[in-house]
Amino acid sequence: MALSEFELIERYFTGVGTGRDDVILSVGDDTALVAPHAGRHLALSLDTLVAGVHFPVDAPAETVGYKSLAVNLSDLAAMAAEPAWLLLALTLPQADPDWLEHFAGGLATLANEAGMALVGGDISRGQALTVTVQVAGYSDRPLRRDGARPGDGLYISGTLGDAALGLKLWQGGQREGSDACFLIERLHHPNPRITLAQALADLANAAIDVSDGLLADAGHLANRSAVAVTIEPHRLPLSPALRRSAPATQATILALTGGDDYELCLSLPLEREREAQARAEEIGVKLTRIGRVVEGNGVQLVSPTGEKTAYEYSGYKHFC
Amino acid sequence: MALSEFELIERYFTGVGTGRDDVILSVGDDTALVAPHAGRHLALSLDTLVAGVHFPVDAPAETVGYKSLAVNLSDLAAMAAEPAWLLLALTLPQADPDWLEHFAGGLATLANEAGMALVGGDISRGQALTVTVQVAGYSDRPLRRDGARPGDGLYISGTLGDAALGLKLWQGGQREGSDACFLIERLHHPNPRITLAQALADLANAAIDVSDGLLADAGHLANRSAVAVTIEPHRLPLSPALRRSAPATQATILALTGGDDYELCLSLPLEREREAQARAEEIGVKLTRIGRVVEGNGVQLVSPTGEKTAYEYSGYKHFC
Repeated sequence: MALSEFELIERYFTGVGTGRDDVILSVGDDTALVAPHAGRHLALSLDTLVAGVHFPVDAPAETVGYKSLAVNLSDLAAMAAEPAWLLLALTLPQADPDWLEHFAGGLATLANEAGMALVGGDISRGQALTVTVQVAGYSDRPLRRDGARPGDGLYISGTLGDAALGLKLWQGGQREGSDACFLIERLHHPNPRITLAQALADLANAAIDVSDGLLADAGHLANRSAVAVTIEPHRLPLSPALRRSAPATQATILALTGGDDYELCLSLPLEREREAQARAEEIGVKLTRIGRVVEGNGVQLVSPTGEKTAYEYSGYKHFC
Repeated sequence: MALSEFELIERYFTGVGTGRDDVILSVGDDTALVAPHAGRHLALSLDTLVAGVHFPVDAPAETVGYKSLAVNLSDLAAMAAEPAWLLLALTLPQADPDWLEHFAGGLATLANEAGMALVGGDISRGQALTVTVQVAGYSDRPLRRDGARPGDGLYISGTLGDAALGLKLWQGGQREGSDACFLIERLHHPNPRITLAQALADLANAAIDVSDGLLADAGHLANRSAVAVTIEPHRLPLSPALRRSAPATQATILALTGGDDYELCLSLPLEREREAQARAEEIGVKLTRIGRVVEGNGVQLVSPTGEKTAYEYSGYKHFC
């Protein structure tokens, strides 16, 4: 079954996502045309996933489609943005209709949930399966990385370390049992914290999404804000499944350094903590204080007895 | 020399392009932030170039950077859009500083010429060199593919077939002499017709850029407009270098079917031809009538004596 790229686009990528009043012209012309709401700012991001680098080569097509949008939505969440449109660039070794149908299905599921429209794209042939998604969203009150202030608390949504252990389990072929299923599901279907970010946008001073590991990403936030952050490892929120599946020390290391969680790390004034946690609870997301923002630079780990260790780690490095 | 992706972005991709009053936050946060001018529509496009598929594996880095933006600008031109911002996704087998510097230089040259700012991106490791550029531009009077009407003339900017022969010469190692240089230059540095498109936006009924070959792209325009187009091969504008470098028949075939020219194919009322050509001349671009728009569907070739042949060809197909 040989379809041209035009037929592939027509069959799998036309009408993906929701209808939107700000989309004038979607897939099918030289470009898409949109009419941004007047006076609103747009947050723009793009992220690439490469098979064997960002997801296992044997990951189900549906999860690749879902995750290629999820990682981008996580960036929009970190800016407290409201998702609007996406464009897709897909490079494929071959056009397998079954794979494409499931890939498009995973992408469409999340696009619909997020209220986004797929407005354009490009499909080409290439040796390595590579997916680039570009997203735009309205951001009226952006949560930048550079707003953290000494005196803020440091908070994390959800739980950490699940996706990193999920990846190990997937790679080791251990896919049975409810804990393994939960952890692998966290790897394949991250939950971008769009709603939480919007609910906290007027309380928080800064935010970053945790894609490369907490220590690395908290380090970026500290650097951009010209402050130091302390992290108390014993406070890190761990899922019951992770606690049951790994020794305590390994679980903590995964929570500190594992990538792919796509939780939100926020800096907000301690006196707004109660309000922030109440709002998070209302949308069903746990918000945990894991440390503080202080004068200085870098990331410090603080033990339950108050001992401090400066930690130098910069997350997953593609080229080192 | 091992640099992390953050250091690579900092060193090569920060501050690329021109300053713009509608860019609030550029490279360095979770997303870029832009403030679109109120009441203006945005044209959005993205295109991927894969080494060995869209450009020769031995193409100079500068030309890869230049062309990855040029092919996207050509899409903006086809919508008569005014370039604004771009985002870059780069997948690399390794981070070679020399390659990156020249790649970024080529990209920056064209971004500056077009008045665009690079506002965000993603660099990751992957086996195949893959470049995806996403562009946005203001499009107040879009030239869609679906507006061609019977009675229009069909026009092409510049000359056709140069890039296709340039590719053959490059691949064959024939890079000496002024004609070969010209043809290879046409391959490596296409000239997106941004200015021409804006000058003709109020005269033309439809436009498409010629990336897959004239017959294929004129076919897309005909299909989307629910009309037929006739093309008179003897009218096709050929460069002196192409005429000197290929027999007449081969030159015509290259002009009809060769890709990568990134010229603009326009449909406009015959009675506006003189005005359109005068405006084109003012900008220093040749605008040639190559056929007509008529009732029907598909593309017909018309000989000097008026004989017609229906032509079925749909350009470069990635998956057939």
